[in-house]
Amino acid sequence: MKRTVGDFLLDRLSQIGVKDILGVPGDYNLQLLIQAERRKDIRFVGTRNELNGGYAADGYSRVNGISALLTTYGVGDLSAINAIAGAYAEYVPIVCITGAPPLNSMYRRRFLHHTTAEGNFEDVMNCYRPFTVAQARIAPQNAVEEIDRVLRACVRKKRPVYLQIPSDITFFEIDVCNEKLSLCQQTSDARQLGAVLERIEEKLAKAKNPSALLGMALDRFGLSDSTQAMIENFNIPFATLSAAQCVLDGDHPQWIGGYSGRSSSDQVKAAIEESDCLFGLNVKFTDSNSSYFTQKIPEDMIDIRPFRTIIGHEVFEGVSAVELLEALSKITPPKKYQNIPAKIAKTENNWVSKGSEKLIQDRFWKRVEKFIKPNDVVVTEAGTSMRGVKILDMPSGITIISQPLWLSIGYSLPALFGSSLAQPNRRQVIFIGDGSFQLTAQEVSSFFEHDLKPIIFLINNRGYTIERAIMGFHSAYNDIPNWNYKQLFEAFSDGKPFFARQVVTEDDFESVLQDAEKASDQLCLIEVMFDPLDIPKAVQSSANMVASFNYGPRGLKELDKNVDD
Amino acid sequence: MKRTVGDFLLDRLSQIGVKDILGVPGDYNLQLLIQAERRKDIRFVGTRNELNGGYAADGYSRVNGISALLTTYGVGDLSAINAIAGAYAEYVPIVCITGAPPLNSMYRRRFLHHTTAEGNFEDVMNCYRPFTVAQARIAPQNAVEEIDRVLRACVRKKRPVYLQIPSDITFFEIDVCNEKLSLCQQTSDARQLGAVLERIEEKLAKAKNPSALLGMALDRFGLSDSTQAMIENFNIPFATLSAAQCVLDGDHPQWIGGYSGRSSSDQVKAAIEESDCLFGLNVKFTDSNSSYFTQKIPEDMIDIRPFRTIIGHEVFEGVSAVELLEALSKITPPKKYQNIPAKIAKTENNWVSKGSEKLIQDRFWKRVEKFIKPNDVVVTEAGTSMRGVKILDMPSGITIISQPLWLSIGYSLPALFGSSLAQPNRRQVIFIGDGSFQLTAQEVSSFFEHDLKPIIFLINNRGYTIERAIMGFHSAYNDIPNWNYKQLFEAFSDGKPFFARQVVTEDDFESVLQDAEKASDQLCLIEVMFDPLDIPKAVQSSANMVASFNYGPRGLKELDKNVDD
Ligand SMILES: Cc1ncc(C[n+]2csc(CCOP(=O)(O)OP(=O)(O)O)c2C)c(N)n1
Ligand SMILES: Cc1ncc(C[n+]2csc(CCOP(=O)(O)OP(=O)(O)O)c2C)c(N)n1
Repeated sequence: MKRTVGDFLLDRLSQIGVKDILGVPGDYNLQLLIQAERRKDIRFVGTRNELNGGYAADGYSRVNGISALLTTYGVGDLSAINAIAGAYAEYVPIVCITGAPPLNSMYRRRFLHHTTAEGNFEDVMNCYRPFTVAQARIAPQNAVEEIDRVLRACVRKKRPVYLQIPSDITFFEIDVCNEKLSLCQQTSDARQLGAVLERIEEKLAKAKNPSALLGMALDRFGLSDSTQAMIENFNIPFATLSAAQCVLDGDHPQWIGGYSGRSSSDQVKAAIEESDCLFGLNVKFTDSNSSYFTQKIPEDMIDIRPFRTIIGHEVFEGVSAVELLEALSKITPPKKYQNIPAKIAKTENNWVSKGSEKLIQDRFWKRVEKFIKPNDVVVTEAGTSMRGVKILDMPSGITIISQPLWLSIGYSLPALFGSSLAQPNRRQVIFIGDGSFQLTAQEVSSFFEHDLKPIIFLINNRGYTIERAIMGFHSAYNDIPNWNYKQLFEAFSDGKPFFARQVVTEDDFESVLQDAEKASDQLCLIEVMFDPLDIPKAVQSSANMVASFNYGPRGLKELDKNVDD
Repeated sequence: MKRTVGDFLLDRLSQIGVKDILGVPGDYNLQLLIQAERRKDIRFVGTRNELNGGYAADGYSRVNGISALLTTYGVGDLSAINAIAGAYAEYVPIVCITGAPPLNSMYRRRFLHHTTAEGNFEDVMNCYRPFTVAQARIAPQNAVEEIDRVLRACVRKKRPVYLQIPSDITFFEIDVCNEKLSLCQQTSDARQLGAVLERIEEKLAKAKNPSALLGMALDRFGLSDSTQAMIENFNIPFATLSAAQCVLDGDHPQWIGGYSGRSSSDQVKAAIEESDCLFGLNVKFTDSNSSYFTQKIPEDMIDIRPFRTIIGHEVFEGVSAVELLEALSKITPPKKYQNIPAKIAKTENNWVSKGSEKLIQDRFWKRVEKFIKPNDVVVTEAGTSMRGVKILDMPSGITIISQPLWLSIGYSLPALFGSSLAQPNRRQVIFIGDGSFQLTAQEVSSFFEHDLKPIIFLINNRGYTIERAIMGFHSAYNDIPNWNYKQLFEAFSDGKPFFARQVVTEDDFESVLQDAEKASDQLCLIEVMFDPLDIPKAVQSSANMVASFNYGPRGLKELDKNVDD
């Protein structure tokens, strides 16, 4: 069959589930955009800039399973690279496509715009290498092979990939086969799978207090259901690392809480650290999910990864986690385990407004807990809000979107645009600091353009409060200009109505939330005013950990000096 | 002498002329910020995000000679890299400083936030390598040596450099010498300088029509004055590549116009292409400054670079351009050259408003010409406005800030912030398309924060007009959302007054310009409304060149199809 290079790429994207290509046009990608414009199965959605496009693609992928970003060479892909590095760190699959200069001009190393004019056409690709799992420069003679290879890597590894499509070849016809992109996942080597199963059953038979710890990207790897099935089959307790919040239902009766090294509750510590048969699902300890490496994990944890399992010194390569978990969810548990701690009776959330008292962070989050509904998408960001969301008791079906590892501010607002675009029928709620908001604020305009109606809680505390807690309570570098946010939204709204209110007191908050529930046919902006130094205790204590790791005793001494000034 | 690592770095920055460090705080750089806060000679100025910070540093450097950008590791420096790549391409010196994780944690390859948690601490630095001329990770034991090496490279090569300062070492005391950073430029090898001078005098003696062609970054390399002196000494005509617009006075009597290959005027073509003794000053031909490589340059051009001169096959290494040009400006010219074309009598600009007629681009630019004053800083950007500025007859003392090679949109607004911050007493005028404006719009807030009062001409033509001209006149991907720009500025203004007017007709424009001149104590926003397809002829013809180079005949055929639809 004959197909143009451009349409072949778009066919493939469509086959793997991309419905919208996010990004920004540029002269090297306009041909491909013309090709996209002529199709019904896929459309281009412009974002206000490329970094925002990358973040939006991240949010889109987290709820849709995959996404695509289109940029122009040099200026475009380099603008987006921080978003792509974040997606790499967090295991979010994004197909990054760059419209590149004509093939011959790269071959002849011509001095072109959007290059450094030194004939170097490897520099940009090299920047993408550490942050993508496959890369290719497409030519008519390699298009079929390379596009398929790169897209398969994206789907299999759940991380970004990078394609350069020269501007002059998208209308060239190539021979393609008639079949859809085969994404068949490798199944396990049967003997390896048997061996690991046997080993696990042995452990289980001897175990008194098995438990599970959930790590990164289980949803992206399609492991949520089988993980839940296994946990329910064995009736064991499980805890979550920060990246796994709400990957299983937030109100699952076997969930005992978040694990984060020494900051964990005693109950969680005991269940995880003293387990004699701990299942680890994609567990990766980083500074921020382990209270700076204070985890204490049994050495013989059953360390399950998408394509291998490791138990102490034994390595079982070639074992698919999906199959392993499915098998484990079907075997008869060797015993009845009783070690699920009697659920600490969930203290009922009986938040009642304290009238005209100023609303403070602690009280804010407590009230938010009652506001979140099953199946909401909850988006959040580095700053006090990420920590706020982390401690909420969540209902079932929630998707949390945030970057607990990469922690790039400015991420969440465009990510919310992506997730809302992909799933407009779910309620989407964001908690974002004013500091973070300012980095990528122009993407607000995209909600109005596409009639999307998220609920935006803007935490206005006049600056970078989390950084104040780390170093420089009163330092000017942690201040930011004060914007009129409602007016800003108006400027972006193109005359469309939206709901906007400011909250200062407890009563304000209660009434605004009630009104917002009624205004669900409109975008809602709820600006919550806090004191710059309203720092919840847990935030201050983790900020102290950051400071002591980052600056050491010498720095802390200087910090004290600063505080005393 | 003992000095802390942080203060030593800040001393050095101050010594090379940095007064403001632009950027965004983050936990890995807060210690250095505390150190900056305690000084009087240097201050930190926060930008709304890191890409904007990079652009602002670019604008600052172009008028100040040098600048510095401070980011936090990973999320910060990767966000800024497109700005730095642009500064590299365009020869703009910026000292990029990243607050990095504690030294020991990199050495031990710990899994930290703002990294991909794979123990790779080279990835970010590797991204910066192709776009900076020196890089270093600072440790107490190398700080003096490495900081000085890297800063010297920045000053000498007029391109960005990259420093990583681990967060835990900035308060460590090191031994430093008492002297300022020596920046002594190498002088020429005397025999080489003698040889090239002799060779040039030989050529001049035989020449009938010597002339000069000015290329990139002459101002940054400190070559403007000596170039002008040489040109005046020989009384020869000179033309400019796009990057050299107004590097010498725009109304210099020996200036004959811009050279850009086959698009040049006949007069300029003759003077350059047929010269028998052409001086080339940092000449580099790229697609966009040569109408796609249609230049015809005498093979024996005297090709003068900062540290070497090449004449045909003869190479004179080790010759400093400053010294060579100074020598050439002092020798007695072997002849009187008469080849300065009788200045085509500048047609007087007698723009008179056509009343209530709709203002169109061609007429807009003609009127703008009368508005520009000597010594203005004129900032512009890829899009129709760059081409508009290019054809203006300029008075003396103008600084043009734009990226004729890298052409990244979103650049100009933050660059204007940087240039205004560095030279608040010059009048600063920007011409920016609505498309470009939207990428980095939040930086408007910084003008208000720092009481800077530029004049902002916002070309509102509802999208990416220049891209429409290239491919997709009516394509939706070239549309952008319509913002209420005045309201947007209000939202950023923090209540400070500013001047804002919209222009539709010729009369509007005339009266707005007159009022704006009076409102020079306020920031001025002049929003000029054009039809999306108001494409000046010269813009369309260069867009056609772009399309035919980018897409080839096959693409153009598809383009026609699109146009006919
Ligand atoms: C791109 C990027 N730049 C800088 C940082 C450093 N940083 C982390 S949190 C933060 C402040 C966030 O402030 P805000 O969103 O207002 O939240 P708050 O803590 O005030 O509630 C900053 C500057 C970062 N993580 N990412
Ligand atoms: C960062 C970046 N993204 C995309 C492009 C491609 N591009 C070049 S010009 C342009 C449109 C500019 O539109 P506008 O500023 O409105 O100017 P106009 O031509 O409409 O006057 C675009 C999208 C670019 N040069 N840089």
